[in-house]
Amino acid sequence: MKLFHSPYSPFVRKVMVVAHEVGLVGRIECLPGAAHPTQRDHTLLAQNPLAQVPTLIGEDGQILADSRVICEYLDTLGQGTLFPRSGPARWVALIDQSMADGLLDAALLIRYERTIRPETERSDAWLAGQRAKIEGVLAAFEERADAFGDRVDIGTIAIGCALGYLDLRFGDWPWRDTVPKLAAWAGGFGARPAMVATRPPDPVST
Amino acid sequence: MKLFHSPYSPFVRKVMVVAHEVGLVGRIECLPGAAHPTQRDHTLLAQNPLAQVPTLIGEDGQILADSRVICEYLDTLGQGTLFPRSGPARWVALIDQSMADGLLDAALLIRYERTIRPETERSDAWLAGQRAKIEGVLAAFEERADAFGDRVDIGTIAIGCALGYLDLRFGDWPWRDTVPKLAAWAGGFGARPAMVATRPPDPVST
Repeated sequence: MKLFHSPYSPFVRKVMVVAHEVGLVGRIECLPGAAHPTQRDHTLLAQNPLAQVPTLIGEDGQILADSRVICEYLDTLGQGTLFPRSGPARWVALIDQSMADGLLDAALLIRYERTIRPETERSDAWLAGQRAKIEGVLAAFEERADAFGDRVDIGTIAIGCALGYLDLRFGDWPWRDTVPKLAAWAGGFGARPAMVATRPPDPVST
Repeated sequence: MKLFHSPYSPFVRKVMVVAHEVGLVGRIECLPGAAHPTQRDHTLLAQNPLAQVPTLIGEDGQILADSRVICEYLDTLGQGTLFPRSGPARWVALIDQSMADGLLDAALLIRYERTIRPETERSDAWLAGQRAKIEGVLAAFEERADAFGDRVDIGTIAIGCALGYLDLRFGDWPWRDTVPKLAAWAGGFGARPAMVATRPPDPVST
C-alpha cells in the first residue's frame, strides 16, 4: 500500500497510529504529499480530486481518501479492534473521533487563516468562532477524561492526535492549564509506542 | 430521538434521507438548530460543543454529532443496509460518502466566505481552491456515474445531497453541463421518495 503522507498532518498521524497499532506499518510505503488549500499537489490530485492527505492506495489499488475511512480500512485489514464492531462501544469511539476531528478542523481553519491570507483578508470573528469550538471540545473531553481509562480505540487515538496538533501549531496556547485531567490522560496516552513513533518533527516552516 | 435540524443543511438532509429510507423518521422529533460559525446557537451548544447541525439525541440519550456517525447509527438501529457491513461494497460506499462530504465542505467554505465576511476580508485564492475541489469531485463522479446504477447506500445518498446543495446555493453554476452522466443519475436518484421528502425549501435569506 502507498500513503500520501505529511509528517505534520494530524489526520495522517491518526492513520499512522492505527497502522502501528494493528501491525501494518511495514506494508505501507509513505509518499510525500502536500495538502495545501490553494496550491494543490498535482501528483496527489491525480489520485484524489480533493488533493488531501492522507490518501491511501489500498491493497487492491483502490483509492481511499479521508482519515476516518482509511483508519477503518486498516483496522479491518489488520484484524484490529480499534473500531469496536457494534454496540455502545462503537458509538462512543466514533463520537469521540468526530469531536476530535471537529477540533482539528477548527484548528486547521485557524492555521490557514494565519498562514495563507494576507493580514487584510483575515477575520477576527471567524478566528474567534473556531477558537470557541476548540475550547468547547476541550472542556467536554475534560468532563469525561477520568472515564477514558485505558481505552485504545479510534476515539482515543483521534483525541491524542488532536491534542498533539495543538502542541505542534499552537505552542503558545497553554491548553493544559484549563483541562488538567485531559492533560494527564494525554501524557500517558502519548507515551504509547505508536504515538511516540508518529510524533511530528519540529516545524521548519510556518 | 431528537434531531437539531435545519432544512437547508445538506448534512442534515443526509440524516433525514437515511431516516426515511430505514423507516425511522416517525421516531425523530426535529428541533430547530442554526449552525453558524461565528454566531453560535446556545441551545445546541449545550448538547454539542461544536454547535453543529445535525446533532442527534439518540435512543438512550447519548449525543451523536456529525452526519456520518448519525447516519450509521440510524442505519444500524433501523436494521438498514445503507452501510454495507463488510467487503468492497462497504469501502466503495464510505469512499463515495467521503468524496461527497469533501465537496460539501468546500461548498460551505465558499458560502461562509461570501455570506459571513465583508468583501474586504474575502480571498480570491481561497475561493478558487475550494471551487477547484468541487470541480474535481464532480469530474471524478462523472467518470463513474454509469456504474452507480441502482445503488442506494450512504455513498449515493451523500452524492445526491451534495448535488442538491449545489442547486440550492449555487443556482447560477451550470454544473450539469460539464457532467451529463452524473446529472442524469441525479435526476433519477432525486426522485426517490426519501429525496423528495427532504428537498430544501426555497431559500428565504442569504
